[in-house]
Amino acid sequence: MNTSTSPHAQLVGKPVHDIDTPALVIDLDAMKRNLGRMSEFAKKHHIRWRPHAKMHKSVLLAKMQIRAGAIGICVQKTAEAEIMVAGGIHNIYISNQVIAKSKLARVAMLTQAVAPHGGQIAIAVDSLEGVTRLAEAMTEARTTARNNGMSSAPTVIDVFVEIDIGQARCGVDSGVAAVMLALEIRKHPALRFAGLQAYHGKAQHIRSAQERRVAIASAVDAVVMTRQFIESKGIQAGLVTGSGTGSMVLEAASGVYGELQAGSFMFMDADYAQNERDPAQPQFEQALYVKTQVISVHSDHVVCDAGHKSHAIDSGMPKVHFFGAQSELDYFNGGDEHGILRCAAGSTRLPGLGQMLWLVPGHCDPTVNLHDVMIGVKGGLRHGTVDRLISVDARGALT
Amino acid sequence: MNTSTSPHAQLVGKPVHDIDTPALVIDLDAMKRNLGRMSEFAKKHHIRWRPHAKMHKSVLLAKMQIRAGAIGICVQKTAEAEIMVAGGIHNIYISNQVIAKSKLARVAMLTQAVAPHGGQIAIAVDSLEGVTRLAEAMTEARTTARNNGMSSAPTVIDVFVEIDIGQARCGVDSGVAAVMLALEIRKHPALRFAGLQAYHGKAQHIRSAQERRVAIASAVDAVVMTRQFIESKGIQAGLVTGSGTGSMVLEAASGVYGELQAGSFMFMDADYAQNERDPAQPQFEQALYVKTQVISVHSDHVVCDAGHKSHAIDSGMPKVHFFGAQSELDYFNGGDEHGILRCAAGSTRLPGLGQMLWLVPGHCDPTVNLHDVMIGVKGGLRHGTVDRLISVDARGALT
Repeated sequence: MNTSTSPHAQLVGKPVHDIDTPALVIDLDAMKRNLGRMSEFAKKHHIRWRPHAKMHKSVLLAKMQIRAGAIGICVQKTAEAEIMVAGGIHNIYISNQVIAKSKLARVAMLTQAVAPHGGQIAIAVDSLEGVTRLAEAMTEARTTARNNGMSSAPTVIDVFVEIDIGQARCGVDSGVAAVMLALEIRKHPALRFAGLQAYHGKAQHIRSAQERRVAIASAVDAVVMTRQFIESKGIQAGLVTGSGTGSMVLEAASGVYGELQAGSFMFMDADYAQNERDPAQPQFEQALYVKTQVISVHSDHVVCDAGHKSHAIDSGMPKVHFFGAQSELDYFNGGDEHGILRCAAGSTRLPGLGQMLWLVPGHCDPTVNLHDVMIGVKGGLRHGTVDRLISVDARGALT
Repeated sequence: MNTSTSPHAQLVGKPVHDIDTPALVIDLDAMKRNLGRMSEFAKKHHIRWRPHAKMHKSVLLAKMQIRAGAIGICVQKTAEAEIMVAGGIHNIYISNQVIAKSKLARVAMLTQAVAPHGGQIAIAVDSLEGVTRLAEAMTEARTTARNNGMSSAPTVIDVFVEIDIGQARCGVDSGVAAVMLALEIRKHPALRFAGLQAYHGKAQHIRSAQERRVAIASAVDAVVMTRQFIESKGIQAGLVTGSGTGSMVLEAASGVYGELQAGSFMFMDADYAQNERDPAQPQFEQALYVKTQVISVHSDHVVCDAGHKSHAIDSGMPKVHFFGAQSELDYFNGGDEHGILRCAAGSTRLPGLGQMLWLVPGHCDPTVNLHDVMIGVKGGLRHGTVDRLISVDARGALT
């Protein structure tokens, strides 16, 4: 959205105290430190990074990531890619299957839109029919461009073969099935086999560092075996792309992955905070909060004005951020527009009517998607100032 | 949003088949039958109805409800009320606690905005401080209006005392605590004591019809007792407002409730479908769907393009709508952008790549809030036509 029409538009320059509730607030200082840590980590491990913009859905933050060294961004949806291209991001990987003919036509148009900027669109596939459909869309777009007298060179899309390395969602089996797809991709002049999409979403949230190591070791074995199969056919195996914030140190150390897709590191959330930290993992800080206010006070609980229309609860309830001066509180589901807060073990004092509280959402991605703007704060949550509003440009971009 | 800028804008007049996925689709025929059933039910029981617009968040649907006989609408947030007033709805009850001074100033301004239209704003309170803050905001708005030379009569806000009748969220205890608030409200000339807010959110989702009867009987006892307390102080007890789709037949039959707030009946959802139906309950039909498409096919599951950024999962996973011709499928959580579908017991045939499917969301309210537009269809989901796009005007209106 145009941030000037946001109900929070008048907040820039004002103290944090003035932010009306509930609202999504970014600690910009913490976010920038997280960005610096990621950039440094990638340099140290000689690995490129392409953060997932499905998390923040913001053109501004995507550009900030690219300035910090990211090679481009990932998105999950064609509509997200369109919004990012319109915002001036030209190196985009749609790390998902796109099957509808109408969407593939849009993807093909995006390859033409970014070409004059030296950009490149990439996409994932996990079926022969998916490859055929993509090739048809690219060919049609080329024909249309030629018929319209466009003189530029025909565009090519980078295609990653998605393999299932343990998530049991999308992706072909590792090994020979992936080779079949690579061979099919190479038949089509508008498609360029770019390597393997090997993302293990479940591994990101395994609590034990040792168990994460086991899961990613098994994933890496599958990737190595698949690469060998591909190379045995005389095909350049290309890039291996994948990983997320929870397991990035493992893929980075694997020697096989060439690109990290981690995105949550920018904001973090209560779910990632429960992971046992790998010693090699950068110390990412919480940067995303929902500010809320107590609107009803009772003897054994209080009620705040942030329910699950303010924060996603797919990965559990939010945690109440603890400043030290107040009692620790536990958040219980109070429905769409309410949160119920009770004293945590060892605490006795409930907050009063009107008191402001800060929630750490369970899951950053779908929480951001509930808001039109993120309110960027500098100088901390207690005494800081609203620095800028950040538009969630691709909020609700589902198709 | 302006529906003309929606990515679905070109769909009007097109067959249902053309709707890109994932998308929120309303079966307008079913919705209108639901509306007719509610209207008839209220007439038969001589009870007024004020449906909760937090469910659909649409000015258009609010107006349709008022044309069908609703006295006005409920909302949960000040920002929702503002959007509804801007859209021309002038009889609005904010059935929630509003505590922030800045928000109360906005509420007071709304009372002035609707007055020239013969409208009325109402609000709930559950604390003495809440009453005081509201009175201050109303007084300030009156002073400002007078200083600005506005000649119209000073506005009054209707105030309902919220009592806790079993949900253990907001609301004072029934009985004497409610009387204290009624007395306090009556001290302030800009506030008018309007009655009791007595809403039992939990009771809506009790599966057994008999257990719902027990829960609402206990709620009605608390309401009757509180009214007696109030009347014993020589105060007109006013209106009792509350109820939802799950228990509306019980409040309607109570002889105590004067107004039903049920809203979900328009769309229904998979959660309400699990309630054992009370024989007196109108036969509301499912009218809200998420259209989705299979994007990845495997031996034991397929993956569709609707995850929990397309539908809320706070009340459980969506159900796959069963047309009779296809296998029955179970939906499993596949994350933000994917759903995993497996054959239900007794079924063996998985759908193919590209097949369109229809999901019945677990919970209608927060599902609608994820979308900018609802795609209204006439003539059924299989062979129907897109009739219109309905803007989710108050989507994300949190403050």
